[in-house]
Amino acid sequence: MNLILLLPEDTIDGAGRVQLRGRRLRHVLEVHRAEKGDELRVGLLGGRMGMGRVLDITSDVLEMEVRLDSEPPKPLPLSLILALPRPKVLRRVLRTVSSLGVKRIILINSRRVEKSFWQSPFLGTEAMNEQLMLGLEQARDTLLPEIRLCPLFNPFVEDELPGLVQSTLPLVAHPIALTECPRNTDQAVTLAIGPEGGFIPYEVEKFVSAGFTPIHLGERILSVETAVPALISRLF
Amino acid sequence: MNLILLLPEDTIDGAGRVQLRGRRLRHVLEVHRAEKGDELRVGLLGGRMGMGRVLDITSDVLEMEVRLDSEPPKPLPLSLILALPRPKVLRRVLRTVSSLGVKRIILINSRRVEKSFWQSPFLGTEAMNEQLMLGLEQARDTLLPEIRLCPLFNPFVEDELPGLVQSTLPLVAHPIALTECPRNTDQAVTLAIGPEGGFIPYEVEKFVSAGFTPIHLGERILSVETAVPALISRLF
Repeated sequence: MNLILLLPEDTIDGAGRVQLRGRRLRHVLEVHRAEKGDELRVGLLGGRMGMGRVLDITSDVLEMEVRLDSEPPKPLPLSLILALPRPKVLRRVLRTVSSLGVKRIILINSRRVEKSFWQSPFLGTEAMNEQLMLGLEQARDTLLPEIRLCPLFNPFVEDELPGLVQSTLPLVAHPIALTECPRNTDQAVTLAIGPEGGFIPYEVEKFVSAGFTPIHLGERILSVETAVPALISRLF
Repeated sequence: MNLILLLPEDTIDGAGRVQLRGRRLRHVLEVHRAEKGDELRVGLLGGRMGMGRVLDITSDVLEMEVRLDSEPPKPLPLSLILALPRPKVLRRVLRTVSSLGVKRIILINSRRVEKSFWQSPFLGTEAMNEQLMLGLEQARDTLLPEIRLCPLFNPFVEDELPGLVQSTLPLVAHPIALTECPRNTDQAVTLAIGPEGGFIPYEVEKFVSAGFTPIHLGERILSVETAVPALISRLF
């Protein structure tokens, strides 16, 4: 945790005092080993970042006086469309993309997504936000990504995709593509990444019909977990 | 498994017949669901790649006739120096870097590496090679990375580093560096990545004395697991 994410309900008065309990308190006790007077990096969920000075810390509560005087890092200009990964991978991928600064994530179905993945308890809003917040705490950011589930492939690509890609560079990662992934683009990007095993040809064609260019990262086939940071880091 | 890695001992005659049992047989049965006559992508560990035609497959053994007619992808011109991550992360990072084409990995100590990590059974040669081979099977590659353990920081940087960096661009990832990670370099690179929490200033100075340039990937602090593919993908 490189930043302690504060929630509006942590505030105990209008003058910047907060009280933390639970996971964040334990982390500060066990990892930061903070004492009275120490300064810790903090940020208000959805708002500004700054420092918090420890006024009191016990096994029960951490009280800090916080000063929020800087803006969070700029969001990546990226909409990420991701074929729903298996639940364990999903949790890690959500943390990863949140730490990379992605602010719009759309989880879609694809032929090679196992139906059971859509039943996972990890797809609950609270469970997903927990992972996204861990990513923000890792990266030192405060802006929670928005995430949407689209369990039907055709309605998604036919009805929603045309609006989504407007004024963006639409790319679909596809290991056998002819075009290399662009580097250091200054455009907003809509990036679609398939499941393990890839999108099936029909699905790739649907993306191409919607204006997407299939792109690759080289000869090697990467797992979704590796491809996600590799593609994002190459693009921006 | 996008390629079935063959070992010399799988060969049953000189004319390209192999027999597989165990993990690889189970994968072919359960995931590929291959039948007699099917063609599967194969590669000989350390050698060429090609296709294998299934001659027979039972719950006990898979027999194939293989034709090895293509070269594996080119290795990345990268020596990766990595502060030893916690064992669970190490396993995933080894798979990841192997799938990305890294062929030389040096695991080193650092102040923020917990001593207990060096006792992990996952540091055994066989355990590490297993992860590296999974990475090759993922990526479709056959060249096993070489991996070395350097549990003493000072002897490593003072005695080994000077030889290691020769004719390479030496870079150390450091979130507060002033220089951005180079993009799409055509040089060979020696890249050092610290533990969670980063190298301590003394360690960064030692790398700088050895000719390393500290580089960053932007404002956000990434976990080692995310930083590794992000840095490699940015560099090459």
